[in-house]
Amino acid sequence: MRLLCDTAREWVALALRRFDEVLVDHAHCEKKAAAHALSMLAAFPTVAGLPRAMARLAREEAGHLAQVLSVMEKRGLPLGRDPGDPYVQGLQALVRQPARERLLDRLLVSALIEARSEERLALLGANLPDPEMRRFYSRLADAESGHRELFLRFARRCEGFEARLGQMLRAEASLIRELPLRPAIH
Amino acid sequence: MRLLCDTAREWVALALRRFDEVLVDHAHCEKKAAAHALSMLAAFPTVAGLPRAMARLAREEAGHLAQVLSVMEKRGLPLGRDPGDPYVQGLQALVRQPARERLLDRLLVSALIEARSEERLALLGANLPDPEMRRFYSRLADAESGHRELFLRFARRCEGFEARLGQMLRAEASLIRELPLRPAIH
Repeated sequence: MRLLCDTAREWVALALRRFDEVLVDHAHCEKKAAAHALSMLAAFPTVAGLPRAMARLAREEAGHLAQVLSVMEKRGLPLGRDPGDPYVQGLQALVRQPARERLLDRLLVSALIEARSEERLALLGANLPDPEMRRFYSRLADAESGHRELFLRFARRCEGFEARLGQMLRAEASLIRELPLRPAIH
Repeated sequence: MRLLCDTAREWVALALRRFDEVLVDHAHCEKKAAAHALSMLAAFPTVAGLPRAMARLAREEAGHLAQVLSVMEKRGLPLGRDPGDPYVQGLQALVRQPARERLLDRLLVSALIEARSEERLALLGANLPDPEMRRFYSRLADAESGHRELFLRFARRCEGFEARLGQMLRAEASLIRELPLRPAIH
């Protein structure tokens, strides 16, 4: 799977200039990722292998959340309320409701979010001034790549995978082009 | 903190006889515990030290969930839908809504659930026929004890801690005496 459009270079400049805000948003992303893994497990408890895979994923995302919160604490940055993420909300609006379609769509939305996050965390990993933070973000980008593959592995077992993936990739690219750039992961 | 009533011996007999059902319920408990830790962090992001402590707790609970799901897979037990937990719902109904009271009450409810879980997991750890499962449950009971202390540590910083703890302990004991015994952790 390959995303259909690259993140604008302007996003990198904005994210570096207002990195504190990106960090706080990132913590909210990891929190939502962990909660999302638990909700997948609750929603699809009978899909073979899915509950345990999602439990492990939730564990990993909660671990990343703790790491990001630790970086924030060192910088004196409070977490604050989650203002919501228009990119994620835009993708979630594409999820169809009948159970079978919902499973495929939720898996694909998850894979797309992981893929976009991977791209952007890797951009931070390549461009942040502090070597320690570059390593931190490169490591997290690698993790997102594993998560993307995990969601795709389950999605491939669903009927209509290829066609729906194509539609979803196009929708994701449109969203990325339409939404204003923010000092945030998405 | 000491719970005001012990679990009835009949619960142990029931839990051993219908242990498969207890295991499935236990998985749902760990899932709710992980989700609950994330929701505490989302609800109280400005309480000093709480977000990171809850992120770590969510990581640990998700890890336990993965372990319980692994035991279930070996026994061919599917997860299925969460039927809900009348004990936890009964305690949650005691949470007052103003922000300061809500923080204290949610911390105390969490501490009580951990304490009751610790007691019952320890009973399984002492009474299950399989030595490996006895060790598994004894280890998990120890973990619950750490979680109880974590919630109490934050609760002690809140105004009115002692008085409210006394009320909550009495309410918990009433709930345990009133609710029918189930082949479940609570």
